[in-house]
Amino acid sequence: MEIRTVEASEHIGEEVGVHGWLHNVRRLGGVTFVVVRDGWGTVQAVTENDADLAPLAGLALESVVRLRGRVMANPQAPGGLELLSPSFEVITPVTEAPPLPLHKRQLNAALPTLLDHAVVLNRHPARRAVFRLSAGAMAGFRATLNARHFTEVQTPKIVASATESGANVFKLDYFGRPAFLAQSPQFYKQIMVGVLERVYEVAPVFRAEPHDTIRHVNEYVSLDVEFGFIEDHFTVMRLLREVIAGIFDYVGAAHAPDLALLGAALPAVPPDIPHIHFTDAQELILQLHGDDVRGEPDLSPQDERRLGEWARREYDSDFLFVTGYPMVKRPFYTHADPARPDYSNSFDLLFRGTELVTGGQRLHRYGDYLAALERAGYPLAPFETYLEAFRYGMPPHGGFAIGLERLVMQLLGLPNLRLATLFPRDLNRVAP
Amino acid sequence: MEIRTVEASEHIGEEVGVHGWLHNVRRLGGVTFVVVRDGWGTVQAVTENDADLAPLAGLALESVVRLRGRVMANPQAPGGLELLSPSFEVITPVTEAPPLPLHKRQLNAALPTLLDHAVVLNRHPARRAVFRLSAGAMAGFRATLNARHFTEVQTPKIVASATESGANVFKLDYFGRPAFLAQSPQFYKQIMVGVLERVYEVAPVFRAEPHDTIRHVNEYVSLDVEFGFIEDHFTVMRLLREVIAGIFDYVGAAHAPDLALLGAALPAVPPDIPHIHFTDAQELILQLHGDDVRGEPDLSPQDERRLGEWARREYDSDFLFVTGYPMVKRPFYTHADPARPDYSNSFDLLFRGTELVTGGQRLHRYGDYLAALERAGYPLAPFETYLEAFRYGMPPHGGFAIGLERLVMQLLGLPNLRLATLFPRDLNRVAP
Repeated sequence: MEIRTVEASEHIGEEVGVHGWLHNVRRLGGVTFVVVRDGWGTVQAVTENDADLAPLAGLALESVVRLRGRVMANPQAPGGLELLSPSFEVITPVTEAPPLPLHKRQLNAALPTLLDHAVVLNRHPARRAVFRLSAGAMAGFRATLNARHFTEVQTPKIVASATESGANVFKLDYFGRPAFLAQSPQFYKQIMVGVLERVYEVAPVFRAEPHDTIRHVNEYVSLDVEFGFIEDHFTVMRLLREVIAGIFDYVGAAHAPDLALLGAALPAVPPDIPHIHFTDAQELILQLHGDDVRGEPDLSPQDERRLGEWARREYDSDFLFVTGYPMVKRPFYTHADPARPDYSNSFDLLFRGTELVTGGQRLHRYGDYLAALERAGYPLAPFETYLEAFRYGMPPHGGFAIGLERLVMQLLGLPNLRLATLFPRDLNRVAP
Repeated sequence: MEIRTVEASEHIGEEVGVHGWLHNVRRLGGVTFVVVRDGWGTVQAVTENDADLAPLAGLALESVVRLRGRVMANPQAPGGLELLSPSFEVITPVTEAPPLPLHKRQLNAALPTLLDHAVVLNRHPARRAVFRLSAGAMAGFRATLNARHFTEVQTPKIVASATESGANVFKLDYFGRPAFLAQSPQFYKQIMVGVLERVYEVAPVFRAEPHDTIRHVNEYVSLDVEFGFIEDHFTVMRLLREVIAGIFDYVGAAHAPDLALLGAALPAVPPDIPHIHFTDAQELILQLHGDDVRGEPDLSPQDERRLGEWARREYDSDFLFVTGYPMVKRPFYTHADPARPDYSNSFDLLFRGTELVTGGQRLHRYGDYLAALERAGYPLAPFETYLEAFRYGMPPHGGFAIGLERLVMQLLGLPNLRLATLFPRDLNRVAP
């Protein structure tokens, strides 16, 4: 019977076939261990009979093979079983050693070298676990929102005008006209609130920021949500809490082996995530650390770390909402706090001391958009067709965007966002 | 109790609240009917008491309102119920009439006018049904593949080299270097077969084709699949059959009201979809229609229609596989038919006489890629990092790509692909 490696434990005592890549070959005394890796896991074959290994002569690791053998339980073997009396058939021979030692538990090469060989790197079992978790996060995101009557949308990525600001946007030649790559689906998801009331999108976004930091890439996957008939940003924060909990519940249920392989523990998501207003957060930093950041328009990464530690101590929570960021640092479509118009009905969600999600309430009245564009010094013309959404009736609405790679990086404690990205794009890298 | 319009039938006799857009107001004798549309449906309120309507005075359709009333069954009312003793609260007033009469069953404006106002157009109930079906198709696609141990991936859309050919690709300024928008995730999904063995992706693709036809747009959503350890393209066709059936099963179960609203019937997917070789298809066209297209390297849209009609008559099937297209018309990574090397191990799936899916077996040996690139006259250098996948062991593999909008267009019999696209991008249109 032809099985996947991870199904071997259901076939103890049976003769099975698996196929995959030659992951490792080790000789100990007169015994040879051959590990075959398929798309889901690995299985070890063992033999003392060199004739069994004849088909593998001269082959490098990563050769593609079919292996047959009898499954036997063995508590000493990886995964608690091994295949005895193996026979091998070579499907695709490899004769050169691969550029990275995929059979090693740790790959010690420098990051640029690893990323140059991302095509091979991603075959490493620990790397695969990262991307299965990414897939699980997307699935958990969708499942949570589908259960709440949200509809998935796919909005265009080639756009006529920049959403957030004219800077940091990739320019494109669109049949002789200038166009841009979408920095976010912001306008479209708001427009779709007028259509389907509750929407989400999972899609790439493109940021031409000339940053070279451990937590930025220039193309990433954004999990975007927008919905109507909210009270204010607190309605949005309540939904976000459900979505984050839904993602981790899904990942925990579907990907326990991947989490174990990566040594990662899922955070508990409190029933009510604690929240603190931006100005109170600055006061707190002054009290606790003697650092007077009052009047600063934003929180620094250090501020975020300190607030994360405080939430951990004070509320036993890996999560903290900071609300009410100053309007000057938020995009023009942000809704002000009616009681304190210099501050916004917006929030960041910090996860383990780093910003994971940004969101808030948006403007919904046409007149407010006209005023906001004028205040921001943007011309009206490029926005006119989008503004039809507001001209013809929009309810109070809001939403948020979760960076998929950021979520995975923070969950797993990865040292660089690039390691949560299959094929990262940065200032210096556009291939593979 | 605050409910969604589509939940009203569960609350007969109760006082409920709904919110939404003022979809229609009609007066018949002394009776006024007010239809409110939320994100999922509509509900009709009815009153003979003009005082109930006072809050709506001077408002245009599409105003955002909250409606309270008592749900009463009424077989004459749309949906079999209506809200009596209504009271209205205005959330966002609209004072201008919208540019399209959304309350009409049919919108008769010309397509360019409709698309200029896509922001408003998409609020029409029939349009929303189209996009809910799109979401259902994506969900059915994923569910079918998840059940078969496929993993979802997200691959980069900014790429260093064109996949299919240098023509018809959008060029980009990437921090001063040239880059391109991905025409397909082709290389990446193949590379990922070496990583996860079975993968799929739902993502935008970008084609700079200067076509202006009813069945092309320049950005669309591609449902991509790739998997390893296949026999040949027939293994791929068997999976595709399962995926198509899975999509329609899902849509039928989750979206029956949308199908009914659009007057669309789901096709039966035969347990074995009939298939015909490219050369036999050309012979058949000669026999049946006296048209000698033998020697042509491709099928014309008319040929496809004729073959679709033949499959309908001969096999009672809306689907037909055409296999073995000439190698000259297939991309360089296509696997030849070992028995007839001028023809390929590839296929198109025709649905109701139009190409819906293209797929096939790919080359998997490194040496074959070197030879194919040379034959195609492509330089090796831009492909070198991608080719690591083949240099270090790939099994026989293949896959396919379904155009989401094409699928929806064909399913619903829409006259133009743009109508299956939320915000279409074509030669002349990059907004809204």
